[in-house]
Amino acid sequence: MRLALGFAVALMAGAAAADTVSTFKLDNGMDVVVIEDHRAPVVVHMVWYRIGSADEPAGHSGIAHFLEHLMFQGTEEVAPGDLSKIVSAQGGSDNAFTTLDYTAYFQRVAADRLDLMMTLEADRMRNLNLTEDDVTTERQVILEERGERTDSDPGALLGEQMAAAQYMNHPYGTPVIGWRHEMAALSRQDALDFYQANYAPNNAILVVAGDVVPAEVLAMAKAHYGPVPPSDRITPRVRPTEPPQLSERRLVLADARVAQPYVIRTYLAAERNPGDQREAAALKLLAELLGGNPTTSVLARALQFDTQKAVYAAAFYDGMSLDADTFGFVVVPVPGQSLGDTEAALDAVLDKFLTEGVNAEEFARIKAQVRAAEIYGRDNVQGRARTYGAALSIGLTVQDVQDWATILQDVTAEEVMAAANKVLNRKQAVTGWLTTEEAAE
Amino acid sequence: MRLALGFAVALMAGAAAADTVSTFKLDNGMDVVVIEDHRAPVVVHMVWYRIGSADEPAGHSGIAHFLEHLMFQGTEEVAPGDLSKIVSAQGGSDNAFTTLDYTAYFQRVAADRLDLMMTLEADRMRNLNLTEDDVTTERQVILEERGERTDSDPGALLGEQMAAAQYMNHPYGTPVIGWRHEMAALSRQDALDFYQANYAPNNAILVVAGDVVPAEVLAMAKAHYGPVPPSDRITPRVRPTEPPQLSERRLVLADARVAQPYVIRTYLAAERNPGDQREAAALKLLAELLGGNPTTSVLARALQFDTQKAVYAAAFYDGMSLDADTFGFVVVPVPGQSLGDTEAALDAVLDKFLTEGVNAEEFARIKAQVRAAEIYGRDNVQGRARTYGAALSIGLTVQDVQDWATILQDVTAEEVMAAANKVLNRKQAVTGWLTTEEAAE
Repeated sequence: MRLALGFAVALMAGAAAADTVSTFKLDNGMDVVVIEDHRAPVVVHMVWYRIGSADEPAGHSGIAHFLEHLMFQGTEEVAPGDLSKIVSAQGGSDNAFTTLDYTAYFQRVAADRLDLMMTLEADRMRNLNLTEDDVTTERQVILEERGERTDSDPGALLGEQMAAAQYMNHPYGTPVIGWRHEMAALSRQDALDFYQANYAPNNAILVVAGDVVPAEVLAMAKAHYGPVPPSDRITPRVRPTEPPQLSERRLVLADARVAQPYVIRTYLAAERNPGDQREAAALKLLAELLGGNPTTSVLARALQFDTQKAVYAAAFYDGMSLDADTFGFVVVPVPGQSLGDTEAALDAVLDKFLTEGVNAEEFARIKAQVRAAEIYGRDNVQGRARTYGAALSIGLTVQDVQDWATILQDVTAEEVMAAANKVLNRKQAVTGWLTTEEAAE
Repeated sequence: MRLALGFAVALMAGAAAADTVSTFKLDNGMDVVVIEDHRAPVVVHMVWYRIGSADEPAGHSGIAHFLEHLMFQGTEEVAPGDLSKIVSAQGGSDNAFTTLDYTAYFQRVAADRLDLMMTLEADRMRNLNLTEDDVTTERQVILEERGERTDSDPGALLGEQMAAAQYMNHPYGTPVIGWRHEMAALSRQDALDFYQANYAPNNAILVVAGDVVPAEVLAMAKAHYGPVPPSDRITPRVRPTEPPQLSERRLVLADARVAQPYVIRTYLAAERNPGDQREAAALKLLAELLGGNPTTSVLARALQFDTQKAVYAAAFYDGMSLDADTFGFVVVPVPGQSLGDTEAALDAVLDKFLTEGVNAEEFARIKAQVRAAEIYGRDNVQGRARTYGAALSIGLTVQDVQDWATILQDVTAEEVMAAANKVLNRKQAVTGWLTTEEAAE
C-alpha cells in the first residue's frame, strides 16, 4: 500500500511537472504564455495588465476597477455590452477582475473561437469608446457594488480600516474598489487617462491555455496584438515602501449588523519574489500548520477542541503580491466569550507554538497535503492559466511558478520557525475586533 | 475699575485692529503683503511658497524639507552658504522652515537692507545651483536632523506612528522630515524636479513687515520679483481626503528610552477655512477651556488637583492647515499610575464636560485670555508677518486673519459644545500610550 501510494504520487507529480508552457515576446513588448492541454477542445484566453489599484493616482481610488467595468462599453467595432454577448453566443463565458497589482480579462470558449477572442481583446486594448452617459451609468454600478460588498458588511469595513492601518505608506492601504467619496468623483477623463497610460501591449501578458499549438497561438497573437503600438508611458512599478512599524495598531469596529463577533489580526509579511520564494514558502506552510485545515490545524485543535474557546480559527497567507503582503489569523469565539479572552487564547497558542516548534509528524502531513493540493490544482486548466498570469503580472517568472511546489517541499521546519519568529512581530501587526454595538458599550 | 478695564481693552483692541496691511499682486502672479510698523527701523522679509510636505510625490517624503536646506546652496551669483553670511554681515538674521502645507524663507534686517534681501531671494527663486556633492552632504545633514529630532525621541516616533494611523488616505500621515528610508534615497534630480515645479512667483507670497512704505515695497518687489517668469506647472492643491473613519486606532509604543510615560489622543478636526472659521474658533476655545492653562483648565483642575492623577494635562488644537487638522489631549500620570487608569480618568473628565457643558464664568475668562493673547501677539512684528504668511499660504485671506479675533469673541458656548460633541468622536481618534518596555511586558 505504501509503495502503491508512493507510485501514485510520483505519477501525479510527473504529470504536474509536465505543465507544457511556452513563452514568447512580441516585438511590441507583449508577453505571450501558452499552456498546452489537449484533454478537451476548449481554450482559455486571458489578457493581464500589469496595473492594479495600488498603481492608481492618489485621490482617484477605484479607477483601476472602474476602468475594468468600462472596458465592456465597446469600441468602434463592438457596441456597448456586445462583447459578452458575442462570447456567450459562441457558447463561451467571459469575465474580468481587478486586484491590487493587476487587471485581467478572460474568456473560455471552444478552441476554434480563439481567433475571435483575440480580435475582440486586441480591439479594446486601444480603441475603447466611452461616452459620458456610459461613465455615469457604470459609476452608479460600482457604487452599488461597493454598497453590497463593503458598506453593508461590517467585516469588510473592518478589513478596510485595518488595511489602512496596516500600511502606513504603501498604497495597499487603499481598497481595490476605492473609497466611496473618491469613486463618486471618478470621471470619464480619469478613466481615459488611466486607460491610455496603462493599457498597451508592453504592459500586458497574453495567456492562452487549452487545446492549442504554441506556434499557432503565436502566429495568431502576432496577427492580432502585433499591430497594437507600445506605449512610451510604461514605467517601472516602484511604489512607496513601509517605514519601520513601531507599534501594533488596534481597532474595534462595533456595528449593530454584526451577527458573529470575531478577532482578526494581520502582520506585515514577506511576499513571493522572483528567484527568492523560500521565505514565502515557509510562511505558506506556517499558515497551513497553524490554521489551514478547519479541524486538524494547531489553532483548530487548541481552540475548537482542547479548550473549546472558538467555533472557528484559521490562518491566512497568500504571498502573491508585488509588495509586502500580510499574514493573518481569525478566531470566532464560542457564544458568550469575550473577544479579550478569545485574543488571549489565540496568543497563548501562538506562544506555545513558538516555544515548542514544529511537530515533525504534523509537518510531514502538511507537506503531503500541500503537495496534493498543488497537484490537484494543476488539473484545472483555467486555474493554471490564472496562476501563470497572476505570477507574471507581479514579476515572477514561469520558472518561479514551476519551482514553487518543489520549494514548498524543500522548506525545513527550521525555516518555518524562523519565518514564524520574524512575521509574528506585534509591532508590525494590526488587531481588529468586530463586535456588536451592545458589547462595545 | 470695571470701566477702566473696559477702556483699556477697547484701546488695545483698537490698536490691534490697526494692523496696517496692504496687499498687491504682481503681473507674474506673486502676492505681496506689506505690514507697516514704524516703531523700529527694521524689516522682516519673507517669501512663502504654497508647497509643503503634503504636496510631495509619493515615495519621496522629505523632499520639501530637503529642498529648503538645499536653497542655501547658492546660485551663479551667490556661493554656497554665502546667503546667510551676507545677511549676517548686514547685522541681520535669516532662517527657513517647512511644514505640511508651506515652505518659507525669511530675513530680519535693518529696513534699508530690504533691497538686498529681495535681490538674494529673487535670485534663488529660479537660479538655484546644485552639485551632486552639495546634495550628498546635505542629505547627511537631514538624516542627522531626523536622528536627533525623531529617531532618538520615542515621543516623536509615537507621534509619527499616530499620524500615519490618523490619516488613512490624506498625506498628513507622512512626516514633514520624511521617512528615513525615503530620505536616504532623495536625489539631486528629485530636488530639482520639486524646485522647478513649485518654486515660482505665482506660487509664492511675499510678506514684508516693519518700517516700510507700501508703495516703495511694491516698486522694489516689481523690480526684483517682477522679472521672474511664472510657472505653468502650478495646479490647484487638491489632495486626497479621508474616507469615513469607523474605528478608533490604538497604539502602544514601548521604548527603553522613555523616561516619562503618557497617554496622547488625537481626533480628526475641522480646520480654519476662508470665510468659514467659526467651527475652528469654537475648537480653539474648547482646547483652551479643557487644557489651555496648565493650572486652571478643566483637565488640569480635575486631573492634577482634584484627583491628583496627573502631573500634566493639556489639550491642543491649531487649525492653521489647508486640510483637516487634529484636536488632541496629552496626560502625564503621577508616578506609578497605569496608563489605563490615566486614560480612564481623562475620559471621565471629558464625559463630565460633555454632560455639564461650558461653565459661563470660565468661558468668559477664557475669552478674555484669548483676546489678550491675540492683542499682545500683535505687538511682535515678526509674529504678525508669520501669521499673515501662514494664513495666505493655506488659502485664508487678510480679511480672515483680521476677522479671527472677533470670531473668537463671537463664538457662543453652544457652538463650543456643538464642536466638542462633533470632534470628540472616538471613531475618528487615535490613542497612543508611550511607555517603558518593562511596563509593556
